Amino acid sequence: MKAVVYQGAYQVAVEEVDDPRVEAPTDVIVKITTSCICGSDLHMYEGRTGAEPGIVFGHENMGIVTEVGSGVVRVKKGDRVVMPFNVACGFCKNCLAGRTGFCLTVNEGFAGGAYGYVSMGPYKGGQAEYLRVPFADFNCLVLPPGEEHEDDFALLADIFPTGYHATELADVSPGESVCVFGAGPVGLMAAYSAMLRGASRVFVVDRVPDRLRLASQIGATPVDYTQGDAAEQIKAMTQGEGCDKGIDAVGYQATVAAGEEQPAMVLNTLVEAVRPTGMLGVVGLYVPADPGGPNESARNGQLTFAMGRFFEKGQRMGTGQANVKAYNRQLRDMIIAGRAKPSFVVSQHLPLADAPEAYERFDRREEGWTKVLLKPAAMSNGSGRTMAGV
Amino acid sequence: MKAVVYQGAYQVAVEEVDDPRVEAPTDVIVKITTSCICGSDLHMYEGRTGAEPGIVFGHENMGIVTEVGSGVVRVKKGDRVVMPFNVACGFCKNCLAGRTGFCLTVNEGFAGGAYGYVSMGPYKGGQAEYLRVPFADFNCLVLPPGEEHEDDFALLADIFPTGYHATELADVSPGESVCVFGAGPVGLMAAYSAMLRGASRVFVVDRVPDRLRLASQIGATPVDYTQGDAAEQIKAMTQGEGCDKGIDAVGYQATVAAGEEQPAMVLNTLVEAVRPTGMLGVVGLYVPADPGGPNESARNGQLTFAMGRFFEKGQRMGTGQANVKAYNRQLRDMIIAGRAKPSFVVSQHLPLADAPEAYERFDRREEGWTKVLLKPAAMSNGSGRTMAGV
Amino acid sequence: MKAVVYQGAYQVAVEEVDDPRVEAPTDVIVKITTSCICGSDLHMYEGRTGAEPGIVFGHENMGIVTEVGSGVVRVKKGDRVVMPFNVACGFCKNCLAGRTGFCLTVNEGFAGGAYGYVSMGPYKGGQAEYLRVPFADFNCLVLPPGEEHEDDFALLADIFPTGYHATELADVSPGESVCVFGAGPVGLMAAYSAMLRGASRVFVVDRVPDRLRLASQIGATPVDYTQGDAAEQIKAMTQGEGCDKGIDAVGYQATVAAGEEQPAMVLNTLVEAVRPTGMLGVVGLYVPADPGGPNESARNGQLTFAMGRFFEKGQRMGTGQANVKAYNRQLRDMIIAGRAKPSFVVSQHLPLADAPEAYERFDRREEGWTKVLLKPAAMSNGSGRTMAGV
Amino acid sequence: MKAVVYQGAYQVAVEEVDDPRVEAPTDVIVKITTSCICGSDLHMYEGRTGAEPGIVFGHENMGIVTEVGSGVVRVKKGDRVVMPFNVACGFCKNCLAGRTGFCLTVNEGFAGGAYGYVSMGPYKGGQAEYLRVPFADFNCLVLPPGEEHEDDFALLADIFPTGYHATELADVSPGESVCVFGAGPVGLMAAYSAMLRGASRVFVVDRVPDRLRLASQIGATPVDYTQGDAAEQIKAMTQGEGCDKGIDAVGYQATVAAGEEQPAMVLNTLVEAVRPTGMLGVVGLYVPADPGGPNESARNGQLTFAMGRFFEKGQRMGTGQANVKAYNRQLRDMIIAGRAKPSFVVSQHLPLADAPEAYERFDRREEGWTKVLLKPAAMSNGSGRTMAGV
Repeated sequence: MKAVVYQGAYQVAVEEVDDPRVEAPTDVIVKITTSCICGSDLHMYEGRTGAEPGIVFGHENMGIVTEVGSGVVRVKKGDRVVMPFNVACGFCKNCLAGRTGFCLTVNEGFAGGAYGYVSMGPYKGGQAEYLRVPFADFNCLVLPPGEEHEDDFALLADIFPTGYHATELADVSPGESVCVFGAGPVGLMAAYSAMLRGASRVFVVDRVPDRLRLASQIGATPVDYTQGDAAEQIKAMTQGEGCDKGIDAVGYQATVAAGEEQPAMVLNTLVEAVRPTGMLGVVGLYVPADPGGPNESARNGQLTFAMGRFFEKGQRMGTGQANVKAYNRQLRDMIIAGRAKPSFVVSQHLPLADAPEAYERFDRREEGWTKVLLKPAAMSNGSGRTMAGV
Repeated sequence: MKAVVYQGAYQVAVEEVDDPRVEAPTDVIVKITTSCICGSDLHMYEGRTGAEPGIVFGHENMGIVTEVGSGVVRVKKGDRVVMPFNVACGFCKNCLAGRTGFCLTVNEGFAGGAYGYVSMGPYKGGQAEYLRVPFADFNCLVLPPGEEHEDDFALLADIFPTGYHATELADVSPGESVCVFGAGPVGLMAAYSAMLRGASRVFVVDRVPDRLRLASQIGATPVDYTQGDAAEQIKAMTQGEGCDKGIDAVGYQATVAAGEEQPAMVLNTLVEAVRPTGMLGVVGLYVPADPGGPNESARNGQLTFAMGRFFEKGQRMGTGQANVKAYNRQLRDMIIAGRAKPSFVVSQHLPLADAPEAYERFDRREEGWTKVLLKPAAMSNGSGRTMAGV
Repeated sequence: MKAVVYQGAYQVAVEEVDDPRVEAPTDVIVKITTSCICGSDLHMYEGRTGAEPGIVFGHENMGIVTEVGSGVVRVKKGDRVVMPFNVACGFCKNCLAGRTGFCLTVNEGFAGGAYGYVSMGPYKGGQAEYLRVPFADFNCLVLPPGEEHEDDFALLADIFPTGYHATELADVSPGESVCVFGAGPVGLMAAYSAMLRGASRVFVVDRVPDRLRLASQIGATPVDYTQGDAAEQIKAMTQGEGCDKGIDAVGYQATVAAGEEQPAMVLNTLVEAVRPTGMLGVVGLYVPADPGGPNESARNGQLTFAMGRFFEKGQRMGTGQANVKAYNRQLRDMIIAGRAKPSFVVSQHLPLADAPEAYERFDRREEGWTKVLLKPAAMSNGSGRTMAGV
Repeated sequence: MKAVVYQGAYQVAVEEVDDPRVEAPTDVIVKITTSCICGSDLHMYEGRTGAEPGIVFGHENMGIVTEVGSGVVRVKKGDRVVMPFNVACGFCKNCLAGRTGFCLTVNEGFAGGAYGYVSMGPYKGGQAEYLRVPFADFNCLVLPPGEEHEDDFALLADIFPTGYHATELADVSPGESVCVFGAGPVGLMAAYSAMLRGASRVFVVDRVPDRLRLASQIGATPVDYTQGDAAEQIKAMTQGEGCDKGIDAVGYQATVAAGEEQPAMVLNTLVEAVRPTGMLGVVGLYVPADPGGPNESARNGQLTFAMGRFFEKGQRMGTGQANVKAYNRQLRDMIIAGRAKPSFVVSQHLPLADAPEAYERFDRREEGWTKVLLKPAAMSNGSGRTMAGV
């Protein structure tokens, strides 16, 4: 089959690779209908991880079940399914506690596994025609048949639940005010989730006009941090109090206006922007080692955190990648009921063949390239351009 | 009346000061029977804060109500009461949420007030014969009359609830394993609280043999960090997994063996010692500015925190001073029922006149000086020595 | 001043009564701008309680502070305020736990107090020109000055938080399905709250077309129980599964089509309509003694509850009057931010003089009389008719 | 193999039946070392259910894994394991929510499955030499090898987690007072769990001196309900207030002194014995149909519940069989750490051959027959009497 294969820094190619097959009785094979490109794919793409050439990318996957192992009892051939980006077993201590992002079974020696990602286990990605899904009864979320809501459902694999996870880590409750740093796809999903949970006011901080416009569109208040300290702007709009809750959807690659990375900037600004006793939900990535970091601390995954202020304000912080399984069913139901439509962030639908160009342009943060959905089934149409009507 | 008055670095004196009086209809006056010296008093004593001479120390206060304002309806003259160290109003946003340590009313421009403490509002301390208690119906916890459990009840003002708060921040639940860094009075109370909540295993990390002995005595496992990396020792005793939860009862003045301060050491070691998805409860003090800190970051209240590892493990952290009111009634009931006896940490009962010597020896961390209780009513006996049978 | 005074079954009159005054230092006096008539006032009106003539009705009160006791520190003269229907002290065990509907201080021998209600303490109601508010710093919710959102804010005294309380008792979370029995003002507020909390589907069960229309208007699915068993209708719309959560906004005066009361009907239907492990939030009133009940059990406040089925399904149930204080600030903030507009249920604005007629027509459940707001300040205009533009 | 087979009312026999075998790739076979007789087995034994002859009894099972399906990845041959009485899949909506007692997969058309129990699915019981365990990676709790704690671990299959579940339903927290109705094995485990969770006072209500003695032994206060109304006794010991929380470990077969069943007695007494805002945890069985019930309501699984009082007090109630999987790992860890020793309720260890006599005597509630553990491996020793030293 065809698949998007990592070749080295700034290089991916669509190559012929072996078809996946049922390896354990609890596996299924899924024919991919949609696989998204994720901002975190760019960490590998940019050569800023230990990823070796040969990895098949793609951890945001949905499609149709084509083959079912003998130990699978719930998922049936022909089922339309979407998979959390986390691969999880369903029976370890962490999975039992709903922390499927930290499964102790699927990735020997580490807590957590994923498809198509460096260090996250041996699982091939889904930017391909087919995907093997282990522990399929646990990992597949069954969707209504047909083609309705394809884009919305595709976002259930990662960014919608990840944005929601941020609001869960920050325990956003009805009537609260929330500030979200970062208006990329995950930040927008966090803001959108906060609205869905009944937040009274949501502030979204970024510098890219396009992104801030999307934030406005869902009812959030855009805050352009190049126009003045974000914490001060937010305090000014909250009678000096700051927000009840804050969300970091940026992570260690935070940059100031000049493009210089300041890994602690978002966290420390959040501590100021959030009121005493507030909570921070951190889903922007921080890494334990970053060889390309701007200083030695950063290279060791450490940052100069305003712990004194954080403590004085009695704040709390929750972090980590999303436990998608903890939220995807309810979010699916909101989509089906017409109460949520996260696909407002989708900007491109492209055949698999266009993946190399898509990676390039998405990585350059070209205007209008917010969220790209790959369509392996559309591969043969060969046009290489955005597919109208998909 | 007599009171312990701060004179400047390393100097307190017992002086004659004005008697307190009812200033607002919601005030009461309490004749102090016990007021404890707290480790956090030493921050002021050592001249490491902005405390000005003239402050009456003492935020761990209990006694008998002698005068009642006209707007007080529940507390009666003659009631035996203990007060949280936090002064709180009971009706602001934070008090309503149970976060009485961050009251927005009692200390203009800051979240949180306390008796006898720099920057915590105009409230005089209780290392004195009498104390004014504002918002008395809210701030007084009424105790059974008599003299029973005097020492245990006195610890309800601060260290028992503060230790308990750490377990609440870390959400310690039955059957879990917990590591507590710091075996001072608060650390011991945290370990004791973890036991009371049903933790299966509690590890207590310190280097002082006396303190580690007390930890053993309540059923915890002592870990001497001078005998090897504490996180490694704990992992070795938990099949490599680490603890479910961790508690920092040390704070920014963490020292390594040589006595050199390493403000981030405890936090970063906790991140290693606690397993993925675990929670950290931080009650050891971190300050937003520490002019005496070992480096510039420290002086600005920042530390080089292992955020990458913290995030990778999906951990959470709660911080801040205890909301004593949230726990003191239940802890009182455990004492009355004979289910808790926190006074095992008490080492001295002294008349007020002995306060200067007590501060000196406590500050030197002399062996056997774990927790000192001052007894203003015993002042006239003049002996200056430990009072047998109190 | 003028006030609405109970005269006996089916009789209220607007009479001259003594002006309230500050009785304790913690009191304030409020000039009423809006006081609503509540369905629970009808229990007294119909003579179905032990209410004695002379009670001033009105527990849903808002207005402007005109006088402030010497122990009040937060609320100022001139503040625009709305009061929870519950009178509460703020410092008893239940208030501290956020259960202000069960205050142990304000109503000797009973848990809970209210304004203008039989057995709920000595507090006069606010269907009057002025109202005394005890423990004012605790009981007043301060509103933005001016006249904006007057109707929405008035509903913060009772029905909006009560509807919200139902969703809290049932722990409604985003993406869930909820059925609400009863589309009176409280039922509609419950359905509306469920929507605000992100429920994916809300079913509202009633028989009155007007009410079901209002339910549709807020995005809920109306269920007319005269068209077939409500539980069966709901199951048919949820693939046989039933709802995740259920709300009883009817109570013991549930009637079947024929008008005959069947006190257990709603609860037992809810048990069927909600899926295994679901939760029921019960805010419809059940009383410990109902002399007018249809049979002996009912008269003793007992009903034949389907406990076996409830247990088999592992369901949970929360009950009781709302702790308004636990929700009113956040709901106020949603109103201010334009995220909630509960006043869609308001049907009439009337001067105080029209109260007798309003009670009569509201009690007859006349079409179009959903929720009546009395306007004491408008009293002198004497028209006796709906006030346009209020 | 040999197994305990139901023959009809009051008759069980040890018979030769087919050995179980791996039927699905996710199954394992366990050689039973201990299988307990449960009070709920007596419902079938007494012919008070629809159980047909031929059922192999036994849902409290532990042993050694002897055979492993090809899709099992965690459990290994030779592992010592204990299984929750609930059979559960691990991936349905309810299992994902931790409600494994209401699994939607394992028992077509019903929420929840179990071994060896009427209407709970096709799963054979473990009062036998071997047991088939479906979804083994999910359903087996792995224990330390060896023979230590055998009795304590055996109780992890049902009664210890069930007692704990009651405290979870009632949300028992440190310092609270709790009353437990019923001092059978489950009631004692509930009382014991409340102690482990830090309850300050635990009252246990029963009439059997033996059982009340066991309650005293674990630090609870025994209440003999034949000596006066239990609620009044409890109120007298709690200054008239009643308990914070209450637990029903009796169920529908509650009897008054005379032996007459009064299905609502325990629930209605609990409503009185628990204070306003309190919570009830109900694990005593209530059934949707009881052909042998004392009146028509009872026969339909309905009872005359004091709903008015329950509502007036704003109480909450949680019910249903335990989700053993939600608690068994932590409880196991408490046993291993020496912090819990639930086996104090065990009264007999018997070879399988003695099951018929054991059922007879246990059903007669003979003194000293509190909890019987069957030992299939000891079968061949033929003594038929209590096995010393097991």
